[in-house]
Amino acid sequence: MAEIAVFGYGTVGSGVVEVIDRNAELMKSRGVDMHVKYVLDIRDFSGDPISSRIVNDVDVILNDPEISVVCETMGGATFAYEYSRKALEKGISVCTSNKELVEAKGAELMKTAREHGCSYMFEASVGGGIPLIRTINDALTAERIDRIYGILNGTTNYILTKMDECGAGFDEVLKEAQELGYAEKDPTADVEGHDACRKIAILASLVSGKCAEWKDIDTEGITNIDTEDFRFAKELGCSIKLIAMCDFNDGCRAIVSPRMITADSPLNSVKGVFNGVLIHSDMLDDSMYYGRGAGKLATASAVVADAFECVRFDGKEVGRGWSEEKLVFADADDMKGRFFVRVDNANADAAAAALGASDKIKHENETGMVSAEMNGKEFKKKLSGLSGVVKFIRF
Amino acid sequence: MAEIAVFGYGTVGSGVVEVIDRNAELMKSRGVDMHVKYVLDIRDFSGDPISSRIVNDVDVILNDPEISVVCETMGGATFAYEYSRKALEKGISVCTSNKELVEAKGAELMKTAREHGCSYMFEASVGGGIPLIRTINDALTAERIDRIYGILNGTTNYILTKMDECGAGFDEVLKEAQELGYAEKDPTADVEGHDACRKIAILASLVSGKCAEWKDIDTEGITNIDTEDFRFAKELGCSIKLIAMCDFNDGCRAIVSPRMITADSPLNSVKGVFNGVLIHSDMLDDSMYYGRGAGKLATASAVVADAFECVRFDGKEVGRGWSEEKLVFADADDMKGRFFVRVDNANADAAAAALGASDKIKHENETGMVSAEMNGKEFKKKLSGLSGVVKFIRF
Repeated sequence: MAEIAVFGYGTVGSGVVEVIDRNAELMKSRGVDMHVKYVLDIRDFSGDPISSRIVNDVDVILNDPEISVVCETMGGATFAYEYSRKALEKGISVCTSNKELVEAKGAELMKTAREHGCSYMFEASVGGGIPLIRTINDALTAERIDRIYGILNGTTNYILTKMDECGAGFDEVLKEAQELGYAEKDPTADVEGHDACRKIAILASLVSGKCAEWKDIDTEGITNIDTEDFRFAKELGCSIKLIAMCDFNDGCRAIVSPRMITADSPLNSVKGVFNGVLIHSDMLDDSMYYGRGAGKLATASAVVADAFECVRFDGKEVGRGWSEEKLVFADADDMKGRFFVRVDNANADAAAAALGASDKIKHENETGMVSAEMNGKEFKKKLSGLSGVVKFIRF
Repeated sequence: MAEIAVFGYGTVGSGVVEVIDRNAELMKSRGVDMHVKYVLDIRDFSGDPISSRIVNDVDVILNDPEISVVCETMGGATFAYEYSRKALEKGISVCTSNKELVEAKGAELMKTAREHGCSYMFEASVGGGIPLIRTINDALTAERIDRIYGILNGTTNYILTKMDECGAGFDEVLKEAQELGYAEKDPTADVEGHDACRKIAILASLVSGKCAEWKDIDTEGITNIDTEDFRFAKELGCSIKLIAMCDFNDGCRAIVSPRMITADSPLNSVKGVFNGVLIHSDMLDDSMYYGRGAGKLATASAVVADAFECVRFDGKEVGRGWSEEKLVFADADDMKGRFFVRVDNANADAAAAALGASDKIKHENETGMVSAEMNGKEFKKKLSGLSGVVKFIRF
């Protein structure tokens, strides 16, 4: 029997307890017998069945030689960092859903784990319950990954899907998403793309083996996307998605931005709060992973799967991580692509000629067009010489 | 350095050598140093660079204590079975792409592996390069899987996609697929659904822990799908896909058949030779895995990923398998569903009333309709009482 401690009894932490309690027999039949012995929280939850397992002092857990794995679901990078480090120093593997901590201190914590014969695992930090980290670490081991391209934030995907389907504006849909609990009261981290950016930073670190900092990644959110964009998108046979991407050809280039997604892309049908990530690699070509990128039980299940693996391969370092060497990104604007551009009707012909756009869609006041393929620098240079440009969205 | 032997230098076997030769440095940086020492084949490939590694006698390999993993890509269930068993009995892990052998003798070979401290791995036997086996074994460890539902055969998906997009008939598209190498000269195993059936049998075994036999699974191919079906499908906003499914609620029920897939399903956008598999489980809800289900390098990469894991966790049993106990399937016709039915126009109103179909699509001679939800037995009973029925396709 492997005794587990959970750090933090919030949404994901209570989910971890629920997953282990509910599916313990099933996991036992698969070879791992797990039990939650302690839950660390500053609250005592008196009256709740969990209260008998609540401890307020982390040392009770760290000094109990029976504990073999900690599930860290506290969030933040202060106490979570300190407690995770201490656990790893005791040889206790730590499995986390805390993307902030993984992005900020992952390299150091993985090194600590390696030095103490245990593992620091973080499947749940990216894509919730979708096995992305495990796929990159364990399945695509014979693959050179060229590009990761995906929808990594469920809140923005919900908002964009609703705007697309109902023709509603951003503010209206955001308000509805907040009422339904799909968006936070302060939605900044989601709608400005910071959450997706942290996640693509973790994937960039994992693939490159160096430490990517999210602040180095060009990030544009969805707050400027409007109903007129969706009207044009529909006529182009596209949807609009917030795409986090990282390209590993000739250096590493990352960018988070809204994009027009054509109907033939498997990402086009990733709707609502679902996430979907396309990975392109040299032998396998495109593969895609789709599922719930957030939510109590989906995320908790990924934390528990990590704990399962730590117990199963006790004594072996299970994860693969990255070094503390900083990843220096190359300029994302060196990548080639196409660009959807809205121009006022008076200047549309000149813009189309300059951008090499063959098809134009004319609305009452504006014309939408898609540029020829060119790199971002060239595009921006051409754009700066044009009059009447309303906006552009990457294709 | 882990020395590898490859059994069979056909399409996948030569792919395994290519993947290891090309990405050896990359895999070494990920912690596993692999080298192909021998290739077993009855041919000698004189003049080919591989010839120096070719051996014709399996005992040379089995008696070399340096060999730690065998990649079996011979196909068939006679020599492949004998050689795999002998390797496992020597404590050499075997990684295979051979679905016929896995389906027929997997349980026995996994038992042999367990008894000899090694592993029998078969990621490449289902879904080519898509990490399905690994996801079920290693990622969804905390999940109770309710249902697997997917496109597991690239040849039929290519044919159906072409019929859908070009309005061409089955025979014409099959001929084209054969010319392009997407379909075999004798296409029976693909177009009659047997290949997809073997794969869903392997997944059913893996999830249930018992040995599923493909002959026990109701299987219907795509040879009866015609252009009129696609005309109706388009008007219903659907595509038609060959779906292999297994349901684990209240026993285990499996069926392989063409189905109408609505536009909002992520399987709708799985086109051409790609495969896509939806897994529904209790904590994660729906997740989907998409990629190339066949092809030399994609399949070889999955074999090599298995070998990587065997080397990495040398001495631990890596895979999870099933027992030799026979899986007794429950009746698939007990499952509820909806059914698309074509009826001649004279009998359409009576059929719609009997089947609870609300919407009808009228063509020149026939009317298409979708039944209310009912179980398969009830549907077939109602159908047998109707006149003028042309055909039905599951929804």
